[in-house]
Amino acid sequence: MKNFVEPIEKLINEFTRLPGVGKKTASRFAYKIISMKDDEVQSFAQSMLEAKKRVHFCSVCGNFTDDDVCSICQKGNQKLICVVAEPKDIIALEKVRDYDGVYHVLHGLLNPLEGKGPNEIRIKELLDRVAKFGVTEVIMATNPTVEGEATAMYIAKLLKPLNIKVTRIAQGVALGAELEYVDEVTLTHAIADRKEI
Amino acid sequence: MKNFVEPIEKLINEFTRLPGVGKKTASRFAYKIISMKDDEVQSFAQSMLEAKKRVHFCSVCGNFTDDDVCSICQKGNQKLICVVAEPKDIIALEKVRDYDGVYHVLHGLLNPLEGKGPNEIRIKELLDRVAKFGVTEVIMATNPTVEGEATAMYIAKLLKPLNIKVTRIAQGVALGAELEYVDEVTLTHAIADRKEI
Repeated sequence: MKNFVEPIEKLINEFTRLPGVGKKTASRFAYKIISMKDDEVQSFAQSMLEAKKRVHFCSVCGNFTDDDVCSICQKGNQKLICVVAEPKDIIALEKVRDYDGVYHVLHGLLNPLEGKGPNEIRIKELLDRVAKFGVTEVIMATNPTVEGEATAMYIAKLLKPLNIKVTRIAQGVALGAELEYVDEVTLTHAIADRKEI
Repeated sequence: MKNFVEPIEKLINEFTRLPGVGKKTASRFAYKIISMKDDEVQSFAQSMLEAKKRVHFCSVCGNFTDDDVCSICQKGNQKLICVVAEPKDIIALEKVRDYDGVYHVLHGLLNPLEGKGPNEIRIKELLDRVAKFGVTEVIMATNPTVEGEATAMYIAKLLKPLNIKVTRIAQGVALGAELEYVDEVTLTHAIADRKEI
């Protein structure tokens, strides 16, 4: 055996599908699985299948849910929508306690180079929602990257004629950041958007 | 939803059992699983169960195998045994191409503080093997830690009266290491075991 046993090799390959997991980490994971108890491995595999089976997209906002409409859409203020690229962004934003609105997941960002146009992401669904629920404000919370900015600007242009307030999350220096290490684009934003204290 | 959907939450908890995986990494893994295709998740879960079911310890050396006797024990030179703490150490050693002997996995190291005595690791099995196969040399390849050293010394003491050559893997500076960052114990070894060139 110059290599792993076949069932281990196979499991290692599966683990390398996970983000940021290389061959070495994957083999540590596989060894851990083999050293676990039978029922622990059963329960691990089962919850993988369960999550895949029961979790789908909320029919309103596109977030993950095991219901038809997710719990945020059921409770939140429908007139305030925060637009994000992926469901994982909602997790981060939900830690902000004084936001009581709902979300809209685009499932991607505009990216012409990768062939992602306005029809490939959930922009139409956003416009439908805005019309249906009498939305008053849409917060663009896509990442401050080239694609995130472009997508935010594109959607803002579509919404403004509808007389809806469109805002963008603030850019500036992060809490605890050291100025000498902050990039100049961020600093430019931080100075342009400065506030009186 | 101030938290994850329940099936996702459960899957995240399972992923945190893996070595070095915290809540954040686990949630990235869980999201990846949900975004995979149905049959991909099926195959992932299946190979987890397969590996657990089919892989067990080699009845001779204690390495992982899906056979009764592992392929190394079937082919290798039975008179040369390399003793290691865990099966994963064999993977590393098997990359050394000119070693043609077999292995013996202790499944642990002597550690009195954690209640691991000579009966808790596979020392008796090693002595049986040495007697049975007419072993001529035993290489102690446990890690150069306190426990690894103590275990190597303990086993060496048991084997020497049997008139068997017991060796220890060399300690010294690693290839590409920078002397100024090498710890003093390693340097002490490197100088004591210096070779004429």
